[in-house]
Amino acid sequence: MQQKMTAAEVKALLAGTFPQHFGPKGVMQIEDLGPGTARVRFAAGERHLRPGGTVSGPTLMGFSDSAFYVALLGVIGPVPLAVTTNLNINFMRRAKPGNLIAEVRLMKVGKRLAIGEVSIRREGEDDLISHCVATYSIPHAGQEMANGD
Amino acid sequence: MQQKMTAAEVKALLAGTFPQHFGPKGVMQIEDLGPGTARVRFAAGERHLRPGGTVSGPTLMGFSDSAFYVALLGVIGPVPLAVTTNLNINFMRRAKPGNLIAEVRLMKVGKRLAIGEVSIRREGEDDLISHCVATYSIPHAGQEMANGD
Amino acid sequence: MQQKMTAAEVKALLAGTFPQHFGPKGVMQIEDLGPGTARVRFAAGERHLRPGGTVSGPTLMGFSDSAFYVALLGVIGPVPLAVTTNLNINFMRRAKPGNLIAEVRLMKVGKRLAIGEVSIRREGEDDLISHCVATYSIPHAGQEMANGD
Amino acid sequence: MQQKMTAAEVKALLAGTFPQHFGPKGVMQIEDLGPGTARVRFAAGERHLRPGGTVSGPTLMGFSDSAFYVALLGVIGPVPLAVTTNLNINFMRRAKPGNLIAEVRLMKVGKRLAIGEVSIRREGEDDLISHCVATYSIPHAGQEMANGD
Repeated sequence: MQQKMTAAEVKALLAGTFPQHFGPKGVMQIEDLGPGTARVRFAAGERHLRPGGTVSGPTLMGFSDSAFYVALLGVIGPVPLAVTTNLNINFMRRAKPGNLIAEVRLMKVGKRLAIGEVSIRREGEDDLISHCVATYSIPHAGQEMANGD
Repeated sequence: MQQKMTAAEVKALLAGTFPQHFGPKGVMQIEDLGPGTARVRFAAGERHLRPGGTVSGPTLMGFSDSAFYVALLGVIGPVPLAVTTNLNINFMRRAKPGNLIAEVRLMKVGKRLAIGEVSIRREGEDDLISHCVATYSIPHAGQEMANGD
Repeated sequence: MQQKMTAAEVKALLAGTFPQHFGPKGVMQIEDLGPGTARVRFAAGERHLRPGGTVSGPTLMGFSDSAFYVALLGVIGPVPLAVTTNLNINFMRRAKPGNLIAEVRLMKVGKRLAIGEVSIRREGEDDLISHCVATYSIPHAGQEMANGD
Repeated sequence: MQQKMTAAEVKALLAGTFPQHFGPKGVMQIEDLGPGTARVRFAAGERHLRPGGTVSGPTLMGFSDSAFYVALLGVIGPVPLAVTTNLNINFMRRAKPGNLIAEVRLMKVGKRLAIGEVSIRREGEDDLISHCVATYSIPHAGQEMANGD
């Protein structure tokens, strides 16, 4: 896989479209971007918790999805209409609030589909909190919808 | 499957734990609850949209997860520590803001695991927006963690 | 969804390509085919069992995959190169040898992807043995590979 | 994770239960077994092909499932009743007949559930043919059924 955008370029693009995530006060930071890999940090706060004080499932799903998108943009460039078509996530350990790290590895980037995995851990720890495998549909030039249609 | 809680009892329980979802001003309404089935409505507003004006993937995932939990509580009763261990979702069509309906069908409720599916459509339409299959881990009496441990 | 092939036409096509499954002495029978639905019977014998005498997981996966393909051919017609890109299966109860029934429901057939679910039960019983959701990639005209490329 | 059985012990156990896979003339060879990891080789022959001459999906699913079981036995020891409860597989490239290698990494082995991933490649090649994430249910002492019940 080759890289079409740098971490700074992806960050600038996403800060415009998802300011609450990647803007100056956003909760996510791109720590590293390689050809088909990404490392993204997420500052989980009060509003991301479920009763019991652990990070909620939808928060981990959304973080996985965003981190995947970062890695994908790095490879395919600024294609705005790529959309998730499938996401399969396993929750393995409960996550306390604090800094979470997502490591993304794209396994295939074809003309129409990209498949990859996202592992989330607490910063500085080895144990997996969640692991997800997702598929994105990549639009053709001129195509408006990318849900496999 | 038998039913241990009515829709009103599940609603009262969840209004306490998830007021932003099931409270008086919450975005979700339990429309129907049967033995292993549930129908839940979600009012998707501005903050649930992704760029382009369609309901975001994490919103649909979270809605699916909550609707599943409603159906599960109906069958197992007020067991507070059941947690999602796996969720597999396919996104099929983009959803405009407005009322979404989730139909839940539990396929198995064992002593330790419950498996079911959640179909989301726009109110009054037939086409599926998303379909998800999820597994919840059900804690034993006295157990504090339910992530399969 | 519209139907492009009848049950008899799909059976004739598959009897040629998969004689051990759909030929005169094959283990699978197409019992019903509708627009986006199929009902397929499988005679599980000795060689499909795992130690302990229950039908093996790979057998159920393969049966699910074949039954999905039957329903898909009914909708898209004799397109030979459609391939499975994703299959997610939950095993819910052990299956004794005998006749198994797969019920298929296609949830979306787009230009490039088809998504559906397959429920397997023992003939005459209500309880689910397994449930799977699969995605097939549909090739464009003239395309040789369909794995999302 | 700790290791309770060596590769030779797992091989001896499985040669008895699955002789067609792990026996002297079986198609699978355990190449390496570590604490939570395994490397298994599979000699794909004529009977494993689908029309078109590539290794069939059910073959890759069954191989993934068996390789996972090898790694799991290494960690939990000779527990005969562990069963697959969920398997999610993505097919990425077609596989020609020949030697395939499965690399297994267990991500969590709890008291009741084990989760891991299996990557399949052609021997000597880097590109992934398939990637699967599976969950096994581990029986309690004295338990006869392990499908989450």
